[in-house]
Amino acid sequence: MTLAIDAMGGDRGPAMVVEATAMAAKRFPEAFFILYGRDSALNPLVAHYKILKERVRIVHTPDVVEGEDKPSLAIRHGRNSSMGLAIAAVKTGEAGVAVSAGNTGALMALAKFTLRTMPGIYRPALATILPALKNDVIMLDLGANVDCDERNLVQFAIMGAAFSRTVLKQTLPRVGLLNVGVEELKGTDNVKEAGKILHDANLPMQFVGFLEGDSIGIGDVDVVVTDGFTGNIAVKTAEGTAKLIAELLRGAFERSFITRIGFFFAKGGMEWIKKHLDPNTHNGAVFLGLNGLVVKSHGSASASGFAEAIQVAIDMSRNRIIKLITDDLKNFSTEDFANIKKRSQA
Amino acid sequence: MTLAIDAMGGDRGPAMVVEATAMAAKRFPEAFFILYGRDSALNPLVAHYKILKERVRIVHTPDVVEGEDKPSLAIRHGRNSSMGLAIAAVKTGEAGVAVSAGNTGALMALAKFTLRTMPGIYRPALATILPALKNDVIMLDLGANVDCDERNLVQFAIMGAAFSRTVLKQTLPRVGLLNVGVEELKGTDNVKEAGKILHDANLPMQFVGFLEGDSIGIGDVDVVVTDGFTGNIAVKTAEGTAKLIAELLRGAFERSFITRIGFFFAKGGMEWIKKHLDPNTHNGAVFLGLNGLVVKSHGSASASGFAEAIQVAIDMSRNRIIKLITDDLKNFSTEDFANIKKRSQA
Repeated sequence: MTLAIDAMGGDRGPAMVVEATAMAAKRFPEAFFILYGRDSALNPLVAHYKILKERVRIVHTPDVVEGEDKPSLAIRHGRNSSMGLAIAAVKTGEAGVAVSAGNTGALMALAKFTLRTMPGIYRPALATILPALKNDVIMLDLGANVDCDERNLVQFAIMGAAFSRTVLKQTLPRVGLLNVGVEELKGTDNVKEAGKILHDANLPMQFVGFLEGDSIGIGDVDVVVTDGFTGNIAVKTAEGTAKLIAELLRGAFERSFITRIGFFFAKGGMEWIKKHLDPNTHNGAVFLGLNGLVVKSHGSASASGFAEAIQVAIDMSRNRIIKLITDDLKNFSTEDFANIKKRSQA
Repeated sequence: MTLAIDAMGGDRGPAMVVEATAMAAKRFPEAFFILYGRDSALNPLVAHYKILKERVRIVHTPDVVEGEDKPSLAIRHGRNSSMGLAIAAVKTGEAGVAVSAGNTGALMALAKFTLRTMPGIYRPALATILPALKNDVIMLDLGANVDCDERNLVQFAIMGAAFSRTVLKQTLPRVGLLNVGVEELKGTDNVKEAGKILHDANLPMQFVGFLEGDSIGIGDVDVVVTDGFTGNIAVKTAEGTAKLIAELLRGAFERSFITRIGFFFAKGGMEWIKKHLDPNTHNGAVFLGLNGLVVKSHGSASASGFAEAIQVAIDMSRNRIIKLITDDLKNFSTEDFANIKKRSQA
């Protein structure tokens, strides 16, 4: 299996990416990596890791998509960048999946432009795995689409379930729709309609109905479906709350000599929490619904975080997620949408 | 100042409400309370608190709105309930504000039906005060309106700013619009349009532009404005994240003998956090935009929590929030909306 790696993306640059590639090379002996970036930077870094010998090819790309570049600029001028060429390698079939820690907007735009949306999919979506109390939860869309109708939400459910089956190995994922209440009458028309369609559809998932926001942290389900506006704000709200509590904890432990002693003894437990909530251990957002796989790592990822994103990429490409989605869509075509809609309005 | 208190609402019932009333009576010597509920339950409870003598009148109401009652049912049959009559007392002017820990949907429906929407306000909104790192933050709408256009969002900003001025005593509140990014080009059309209008408007607030979800926990602003769908999900996501971390902390401290010792010494600090994040210390959601004031307490509030909600009610009624909103609306009429819209589209 060959992976196309954008070696220039991310806040920590090529040294982090090459270290992560070495970690992944050790974990996956059958993987081969094409690194896209400046060869003057990459050659000495790769030479440093014995395990990468004969496991890596460097493709020199002078262009780089910057963190502030607008998506439109990336499409016009970024096609020969490390990001653009990594995605192009997926299009030509040279690589099975591309991984980048670069600018999300540019990556989504270039991926959509180069790979195109899958036949039958109205709009691709950005999905990720989040830590929750009972189990990890897949959530989508995280911001690829700010306006979503019921058909988009239903397709997000199908794609999220396929993601859960391939990466989290759930055979019959429990899927829920984010809403302002669990009763059937609540919510926007789009969400209510999507709920009816998913309830009646025969798909490889267990549709559990509506969920409220606190389900994301609890994890009673495997897949949480919502529009990109709400999803983006919910995930960032969760991050903000975690930061708030971390700051409060720090303050609380520093309050007195006694609490400082407490912190000293509690350190092991705190490290455990930090690891559980560390974005690096849940790294790798996936752009679903394209004719090819692209994985987005956090821009601030460490080498072990980026290696997680590579692992998500390998899991997806091994388990042929695109074929799963294609099959599920075949069983649930545009006419089904029309029929179910007619039925639910009758 | 007279307050109308629904003594039957909330999970803990009349005993909690009467205890909270006694607390508030002590804190506000000028306040008088009308308690609505079953007199057989209320008479002995009130007799128990010396401070309530001559500070309370009990109005017997045999009907009660139950926790599961649908809003439509509350409107049809709840008008003679403790909740319905407490709201009616605001309408007749007998009381300056009503407070209830009952069912939110029923309370919103009854309040809107009885008090009616303020002239010039398109839709009322539910607002609350949330704890954040730097300062408390007012957030609205929390679920009164699942679909909101730009005019609703602009009016939520006006009402939220008035809330901040009266209850949090901010003279020029910093107001932000929740969005999927801080750049002008991001977001739904409604949010972008509301951003332009608020940017150009001359209102007693400092409009800081778009905010992402993590700002809610950080608190760089005084007022966070969003639609009721996103707001409800964001606030519940924050609650879910806090619960997740609390559970992880418990687990982390119980991991070993050493971490248990740590917990023992850190207890003081943990109590401090618990208090900071306790919904009882930030209790009292306000239904803004009606011809009268109604405050909603958490259903699970303790007596001290309900006393907080009474304090919010007193602050608002003392500082004449309805007059503030009316004045701000006068300075920003329907024609202004039309003009700004025309200008921004030119």
